[in-house]
Formats: sequence, C-alpha cells, structure tokens
Amino acid sequence: MVKEQYISHNVVKVTDKMDKIEDRLAIEEPLELRLAGETVAITMRTPGDDHLLAKGFFFCEGFIKKATEVGKVFHCGRLGTPEYGNVIDVMPAPGVLLNFDGANLMKRGTLISSACGVCGRTQIDDLVARCEPFENFTEMQNAGVANCLQALSKNQPLFDLTGGVHAAAVFTQNGDLVACFEDVGRHNATDKIIGKLFESDLIGTALILVVSGRLSFEIVQKATMARIAVVIGISAPTSLAVELAQALKLTLIGFARGDRWTLYTGEI
Amino acid sequence: MVKEQYISHNVVKVTDKMDKIEDRLAIEEPLELRLAGETVAITMRTPGDDHLLAKGFFFCEGFIKKATEVGKVFHCGRLGTPEYGNVIDVMPAPGVLLNFDGANLMKRGTLISSACGVCGRTQIDDLVARCEPFENFTEMQNAGVANCLQALSKNQPLFDLTGGVHAAAVFTQNGDLVACFEDVGRHNATDKIIGKLFESDLIGTALILVVSGRLSFEIVQKATMARIAVVIGISAPTSLAVELAQALKLTLIGFARGDRWTLYTGEI
Repeated sequence: MVKEQYISHNVVKVTDKMDKIEDRLAIEEPLELRLAGETVAITMRTPGDDHLLAKGFFFCEGFIKKATEVGKVFHCGRLGTPEYGNVIDVMPAPGVLLNFDGANLMKRGTLISSACGVCGRTQIDDLVARCEPFENFTEMQNAGVANCLQALSKNQPLFDLTGGVHAAAVFTQNGDLVACFEDVGRHNATDKIIGKLFESDLIGTALILVVSGRLSFEIVQKATMARIAVVIGISAPTSLAVELAQALKLTLIGFARGDRWTLYTGEI
Repeated sequence: MVKEQYISHNVVKVTDKMDKIEDRLAIEEPLELRLAGETVAITMRTPGDDHLLAKGFFFCEGFIKKATEVGKVFHCGRLGTPEYGNVIDVMPAPGVLLNFDGANLMKRGTLISSACGVCGRTQIDDLVARCEPFENFTEMQNAGVANCLQALSKNQPLFDLTGGVHAAAVFTQNGDLVACFEDVGRHNATDKIIGKLFESDLIGTALILVVSGRLSFEIVQKATMARIAVVIGISAPTSLAVELAQALKLTLIGFARGDRWTLYTGEI
C-alpha cells in the first residue's frame, strides 16, 4: 500500500480578484519509529520511503552501523485500518544484538499523546476534543492581511541581522500589534507570544496570528488553545493544518505576500 | 543575565568575487522545559524570553490554565556556568496542584542525551566525540555549488505541486546525483537520503549534501555520521550548526542561490 503524498483542497486565491481553485497540499502525518519493537521517536513526515527514513534515523543516532545488522523492516498494525502505515519497526538481523546504550535518544517534531493512535484521523479528533472549536469562521479583508504582514516584517530585528530566524506576531481585531517574537523555531516564537498573552491575562484578546514560513498543525493547535481565530502564514500549510483548522472553524490563510494570499479554510 | 541572540562569525561571500566579511549568526541553544521540577520537553530555541516560551508551551499543552496558577519561573543551575540559562522550571503557585494527566506530552526539536548537560558547549563536545571529525576541510568550487543547486531544484516534484515541502539531495565528488527526497521535514528528507545510502552500502561515497531551507546542527550531525564532508543550504545556518561544522572540519555553505553563496566553515 502506497500512501498519498498530497491531497487536493478547494481554496480561494485572493489577488485583486478572488478565484476559487483546487489546490494541492503536502501531506503531513506522524510516523512512529520503533527499533526491535521499542518506540524511539515519533516524527511528523510526508508518507513514502518510511523504511529509508527509519534506517537513516537509527543509523544517524548510532543504533545501527551496517546494513547487514538490519533484518525485517515493516509497518505495524492491520492493513486497511487508518493507523496502518504510520508505525514502522526495524528488526535486527537474526543473531544480531542491537546496542541501545550510549546512543543519543533524539525525539523531534514528535507528538506523544496517551489518547493518540499515531494516526492523522484519531489525532485530529483528539485535538478537536481538547481545543474548543470556534463558533463561526472569522472573515478577513485584504487590507487586514496586508497590514499584519507589513507589521510583522517591520518587527524582525534579529532576522534583519542574521537572516536566520522565524517570527510570529499577534494582532487585535482592529489590526493593532499585541506581541511579536523571533526564534530559530516557529513554534518557539508562537509559544513566546502565547506565554505573553497568558502572563498578561490577554488570552482571548488577540484575534490574528501571523507566522513566517510554513503552517504546521501544531501552530493551528496552539492558536486555538489561545483563542486566536485567524492564522496567517507566509508559506504553505500542511494537510493536517488545514484539516484541523477546518474542524475547529479557524480561518487559515497561506502564501500571504503583500495583498496576495490563499484562503484554505474560512469564508470571505 | 541576558543571553546573546546572535554571534559574529568570519565568512567568505562568494559571488563573481570573494569577500571576507564578518557575518552574524542566530544563536540556537537547547532549552529544557520543566514543570514543578519534572522535565517535559527540550526544544532548540533562540535564547530570550524563556519564561514566556515555557508558559506558552505549558498553556498550549493544557498543563496550566490561568496566570494565577503559576508561581515562580526560574532558570536552574549555578549562575556563571555555561549550563545556566538553558533549563527553566515553572512552579505552581502556593496551594495549586497541577494536573499532569490528560495533557498531551509533546516533545519537539528535542535532544535527549545521557551525556549532555543541555548546554551548547557540552553538546558539541559530545557530538564531536561521537562523530569522527573529517581530516581536512573539503574545498568547493563555484561551478560545483551551482550544479548541485540546479539538480536539487529539478528534482522537487512534490514541491512543484504543493509549494509546501523541503528537499534534500546528495552528490558524489564529481557532482553526480546519488539520491534526492522531499518531505515536510528537512530532517526527514535527510534521514531518507542517509537511509538510502545505508541500505545500498553507499555510506562514504556521497560527498555533498544540499538541503532546502536553513541549516540546523542536526543536519551537520547527520551528514557527519554518513561521512558527507560538505553541506550546502539555501538559507542561513544557526550558530550551533557552524560551531559543530568547525569542530568536525565539515565545509558548511549557506545562502546558496545560483552562483552566490556564503562559506561559513572551510577553505577556498
């Protein structure tokens, strides 16, 4: 079974006019990496070549050293279930004892939830249950989007110096900047913003989050927790970000550059 | 004590000529996030506003709900040691019992190593000890860099469709493409490549790794494990990537676009 690497999705492209078109989204799904039956890491990845991802990861982490040490590599679970294909197990070759000691345990981009069956579907249901959905989609006007983008680009002193950091900013309904942070990680910049809102008892007052770069499902989840109803990204959203935004009635805008942007979920 | 957010570094800017200039790198350092003394996550971040990052993270994960639930937030360890400032603890307010149940445990961008004191310095020493350094820096010519970039851009079918994925490719000394993969995660694309080299017993034959986007220390570490002596990125490297590359004698090239690039470590 080969999993798809992208899905089609109806969007509205906004320039000086609005076009309804079918767009394509890169698929983002969790992959649980097991070594001899033991879970070592979970990564959000694009499906495909999972056995190579697993071997490369375990090799880089020092768990396996030669191809001959590796036996069967297989997806766990029952074929035909939605979970199938998102858990991969690398077994040692017969007679080989893998050494788990001394190797770094590196967990990255990972989501470990007691409720989560490591599958896109279950995960979205789980996140929707935990984050209260918005009542209605919030509408955005072209001028509002352009205003937020301009304010973000004016508040990136570390990027201006280094060219190597992400930024995130939040705005009120009227487009007033509430907070802006820069960080090598998009998620960190978003956490710093939400920490600021939390600390100042301002959760619920910010309506719009703008982030540099791509939109992952984690950004949508964080925004919803902080009751931010509109998320704008400079680049593309992943499939999981769009699915989660749709389920939560969060307005998701991608490829926002000047007064051109693409509406992935929401109303105009 | 306020930690710096960038460092200065001598680089060579290559265009039609070569200029030695002082460049600035965004600092990437690990931050261990503790809640009531318990380690919940480690994230690679830019220092600064760590207490906001911690509060935002724990709020988004559902551990804390109101500002009044939070007591002291402090950096652990001894002031003046290099570790100080990279471990932060969020304590509940007096009389508040935090509920660890039911909350997602999310670990992202994290590095957990038994040897690592969660500090840039120790971590680099640890990684250098684990990855054998190269004997000498490998020189790259302008034509070689441009050739690799062109080959990468020609092998991104999923990016062409979606605009939302990273890509990584490896090349031989002669500039022949060995493997190319796309993924929502840069690290995953790199793992898939190294998995392919590993599986085919080709570790040691690829000399150059090209990745879209920014260069984190993890990419440098993975390349070194696979004996890839040159790493080229389309965008900026972080401070930790450059420090690790320097220690390992790995040639690190950033902001590579056409025949313009910046040499961060290595010789020309």
